Amino acid sequence: MDDSVFIPQLKDAHVVIVGMGLMGASLGYDLRGHCRRVTGVVRRPEAVAETEASGCVDDATLDAEAVVAAADLVVLATPVRTILRQIAKLGPQMKPGGVLLDMGSAKTEICRALAALPDHVQGVGGHPMCGKETAGLAAAQPGLYRDCTFVLCPLPRTAPAAFSLAQEMVDFIHARPLLLEPQRHDRLVAAISHLPYLSAAGLVSYVMGVAETDPAVWDVAASGFRDSSRVAASDVRMLMDILLTNRWAVLEATDDFVGRLTELRDALAGSDEERLRAQLTAIAAARRNWEKKRQSH
Amino acid sequence: MDDSVFIPQLKDAHVVIVGMGLMGASLGYDLRGHCRRVTGVVRRPEAVAETEASGCVDDATLDAEAVVAAADLVVLATPVRTILRQIAKLGPQMKPGGVLLDMGSAKTEICRALAALPDHVQGVGGHPMCGKETAGLAAAQPGLYRDCTFVLCPLPRTAPAAFSLAQEMVDFIHARPLLLEPQRHDRLVAAISHLPYLSAAGLVSYVMGVAETDPAVWDVAASGFRDSSRVAASDVRMLMDILLTNRWAVLEATDDFVGRLTELRDALAGSDEERLRAQLTAIAAARRNWEKKRQSH
Repeated sequence: MDDSVFIPQLKDAHVVIVGMGLMGASLGYDLRGHCRRVTGVVRRPEAVAETEASGCVDDATLDAEAVVAAADLVVLATPVRTILRQIAKLGPQMKPGGVLLDMGSAKTEICRALAALPDHVQGVGGHPMCGKETAGLAAAQPGLYRDCTFVLCPLPRTAPAAFSLAQEMVDFIHARPLLLEPQRHDRLVAAISHLPYLSAAGLVSYVMGVAETDPAVWDVAASGFRDSSRVAASDVRMLMDILLTNRWAVLEATDDFVGRLTELRDALAGSDEERLRAQLTAIAAARRNWEKKRQSH
Repeated sequence: MDDSVFIPQLKDAHVVIVGMGLMGASLGYDLRGHCRRVTGVVRRPEAVAETEASGCVDDATLDAEAVVAAADLVVLATPVRTILRQIAKLGPQMKPGGVLLDMGSAKTEICRALAALPDHVQGVGGHPMCGKETAGLAAAQPGLYRDCTFVLCPLPRTAPAAFSLAQEMVDFIHARPLLLEPQRHDRLVAAISHLPYLSAAGLVSYVMGVAETDPAVWDVAASGFRDSSRVAASDVRMLMDILLTNRWAVLEATDDFVGRLTELRDALAGSDEERLRAQLTAIAAARRNWEKKRQSH
């Protein structure tokens, strides 16, 4: 990067958030009033007034290309495959030193797209590890990012000042930045996010099958089913994009998971109490340790 | 049953709860002061004073056989295989017309054991569809049963007055009684409770494997993993008993679940977007419908 290019601090930055869904609008709520200006980019004409009325941005627009040209920080808060298209389309429009951060759940393909942009654009891959199964502007809330892990994947060529602006934003919304290589990120989130989604979907699919012959199954379903299956109600478009762009890691995770489940199944089938008890005890301990560590943050 | 045998209403009943863990002690909190007397049976000598101090019973004792002889209603709130032993040991000590209700998660074996008791004992299988992953007296709370489905399995020979007393107790703690045949109950709870437990355990086991080479996996785990894996932290002894006494239904459910998950996996592997989208959309809709129906109760 040309040393004369100036990258401001967050309070002096014009931030453009592309996509006013749950993640984008929640980010707007946290940033508005603490940056020079927060602009939201929406897709539907009627969403301009809706977004401005919600109070999560200073102004909203349909014209992404016009606003990103002057932005100091552009945050892409759309589904992964939309992010890939927007990087190619909007990135080249940005001013020298403009920082382009995304919030997509699959980082290898996105960081490859960011690296393919002209040298003057400062790309940073990002992924906040939070969300909920309700989507859209109406579900957005201030404080959504508080205490969540926010993965950051700077490119080898990302300037320190550009990375600092991204990190300052993460700190400001009280998230915990975690630097990861894109491939490592993708493998880890396949394990703890994408696989749990596919597994929850498989569970609901199975119960739907049971319900075909005995609909009472829905009446006996309680908190165990509720929690185990919660993410299966997530936004399908968002999840489709994630699964398809992180396909290999998800397939590998799914196969390994089925292998582990089959070990437990076989111990049960063989009434191998000792082995089953040892496995389930170690599993319960690991799960409790994680919960304890998480709550101590 | 001899028509001259008197079965009282709940307010006039001496209720004995065997097992002062989460379920038994929570039941005590709800019933105490609203029955003639509520007695808790504990296993460890030091638990007598702890249980009495907690306020969930009128009195606590180690001597189950002595107190069940005079009880109008005995509720077994112990792990499933302990329940099976207690039915055989305590059932014959009960007075004519005494009602013996259990709260175990597998009903076929338990109802078979209840049916094997002398004719003068009024057996009713029961299973409240609630709980939490923390066990023990300290985790017990008033209102635990509120709004939960409480499955009841009367035996063919259970007298109407005996069944009424069990049902009155369920109504009194604000649970929703649901009559089911034992085999049907076991198949349904395998689907929505026992399989989700095994699947959550498989998920944690898989993540433990990932952590062996990359411990950062625990740091990126967020709410999706938290909910999908919550029940894996449940009491292992209780779950072992459930899995082993409901083994065939759990194995069948696990195999069917793996089949459904594999369908989703294969659609993803083949990048069959249309099929994957159709399946995930139907799954998300079914999960949302269930949630909506549940919240409208």
